[in-house]
Amino acid sequence: MPSEFEIIKIFFDRPVSQTILGVGDDAALIEIPSGHQLVISTDMLVAGRHFFPDTDPYKLGYKSLAVNLSDIAAMGAAPRWVTLALALPEANENWIRDFSKGFCDLAEQYKVDLIGGDTNRGPLNICVEIMGLVPAGKALRRDGAKAGDQIWVSGELGNAALALANLQQKIKLPDDESTALLKALYMPKPRVELGLKLREVAHSAIDISDGLVSDLAHILERSKLGARVYFDKIPRSSILNKYIGNEIVKTCLLGGGDDYELCFTAPLARSNDILSISKAMNLPLTCIGEIVQDKKLTVLDSVGNEMQMMQAGFDHFGG
Amino acid sequence: MPSEFEIIKIFFDRPVSQTILGVGDDAALIEIPSGHQLVISTDMLVAGRHFFPDTDPYKLGYKSLAVNLSDIAAMGAAPRWVTLALALPEANENWIRDFSKGFCDLAEQYKVDLIGGDTNRGPLNICVEIMGLVPAGKALRRDGAKAGDQIWVSGELGNAALALANLQQKIKLPDDESTALLKALYMPKPRVELGLKLREVAHSAIDISDGLVSDLAHILERSKLGARVYFDKIPRSSILNKYIGNEIVKTCLLGGGDDYELCFTAPLARSNDILSISKAMNLPLTCIGEIVQDKKLTVLDSVGNEMQMMQAGFDHFGG
Repeated sequence: MPSEFEIIKIFFDRPVSQTILGVGDDAALIEIPSGHQLVISTDMLVAGRHFFPDTDPYKLGYKSLAVNLSDIAAMGAAPRWVTLALALPEANENWIRDFSKGFCDLAEQYKVDLIGGDTNRGPLNICVEIMGLVPAGKALRRDGAKAGDQIWVSGELGNAALALANLQQKIKLPDDESTALLKALYMPKPRVELGLKLREVAHSAIDISDGLVSDLAHILERSKLGARVYFDKIPRSSILNKYIGNEIVKTCLLGGGDDYELCFTAPLARSNDILSISKAMNLPLTCIGEIVQDKKLTVLDSVGNEMQMMQAGFDHFGG
Repeated sequence: MPSEFEIIKIFFDRPVSQTILGVGDDAALIEIPSGHQLVISTDMLVAGRHFFPDTDPYKLGYKSLAVNLSDIAAMGAAPRWVTLALALPEANENWIRDFSKGFCDLAEQYKVDLIGGDTNRGPLNICVEIMGLVPAGKALRRDGAKAGDQIWVSGELGNAALALANLQQKIKLPDDESTALLKALYMPKPRVELGLKLREVAHSAIDISDGLVSDLAHILERSKLGARVYFDKIPRSSILNKYIGNEIVKTCLLGGGDDYELCFTAPLARSNDILSISKAMNLPLTCIGEIVQDKKLTVLDSVGNEMQMMQAGFDHFGG
């Protein structure tokens, strides 16, 4: 069985391109270019809680980094460095190889250096910390929303949650639909490029990891404002829309995390800029509502009635 | 049961003093003063592997940060920021309160801002990432040792490992001795101040987390050199020395991690400076051997015979 040091060396000691000292010392060393601030986020993924223990390791490696890239995207920052701490129930070399490939393939795609880590024996647990750069004062924060801002989301919501509901047999989808949706669950595309473009346009941003309602509520809380969201405007796949009468599917749309799309607010005057970004990136950006003074989050149905919000938002601890 | 967000707010959302944006956004934001580099290290502590699941939560919180401060100390850097990701089997408020107090008390002592985190339900797992500052080019690295350097260690070695051996009933110590040693196991003092002072004196440094032989071997490997260590010179407590005929106790001294003392190398010409640091800090600094060209680590007994090295070094995965 390979030792910790061998595992680190074989699978995680990759060349770095923007790092003074990477894996292999007590700590890594990096330099921040002048005029920039460092953006830092950490996410822990626990087997049985955030993913099924038998999830394909390549996809799990990919997703472990993707969800962290998503946090950097939501700050309007450029990802640069990452560390990875792993607890593994056994030193299964094939598993580790595939996991590291999923992780490192995505790291390479976004030019992120893996600069440190820790491997341990224990119940499967993946803890990633990511760092990125943003010009000083330019980060997209949750507390920047203004009354009158339009609320936008990228891509389609609810696909990942619907795929999960199908896996959990809360709903029964045909195989072709389930296969199409699983990509959203296992291989979400972090919206890094979008985050960078929004820096000059948006007032506030968050990534949708816990569900639209729950994450938008964070913007509202930090900005001390409220919002009106139009349910019918929330972008969704044609598959999801087929089942929209089902309460579970509504919950997927409003409360399903794991899509890792961005939710952001911007002044009405920038809506054309946003539509231009959407066109240039070939990525749907959809206005779903507006920020209001009244500190309340209201979701309105097609005839303007207030919808009841049930269990919306994924709490990693309670719930 | 408090939710994730409530837990974060109640126990971990502390005031920050050197941070642009702390807990509560997608990511934290920090600024690095010019002329400095950022030092980053991550450590994962797994219940049943690194600590007993019933360890006093205050001590566990303390130690989770202490072992990370130790990595920063070994780089000769000043700790500044930390993030904490936790998986907890249940939301036991008392446990979390005590854990956060142990963690935050030590953070305050070293003026470290807690800037981010993640709490999840899952088998107990603590993942800490620490960041510190060092003037550009001044970090103490593992690859800087030179042939002829003296090898030094701080404090006393083996106490934590002996306390653990006693807990595991591999040896039977009287209660007063066991109590004295347990402090080394549960509340190691990170050698941050020493690390800062060594920056202008030492050629290389590492913190002893896996055991003297194993950690010194990392310096040798990275510096492409060997070492001769004199067993009798390795500093030890009077308690440990009483049992030195016991093989287990020898292993504690050579292979016991968890003391988190520093091992460093420095040219002979700086030995007086090192002794002055020792005196000023009231901290034993002991020369235990020297760096040699021949790429081999030899430990010599009191009559100059080479000692056999058994199981020295703690491998978090194999072993």
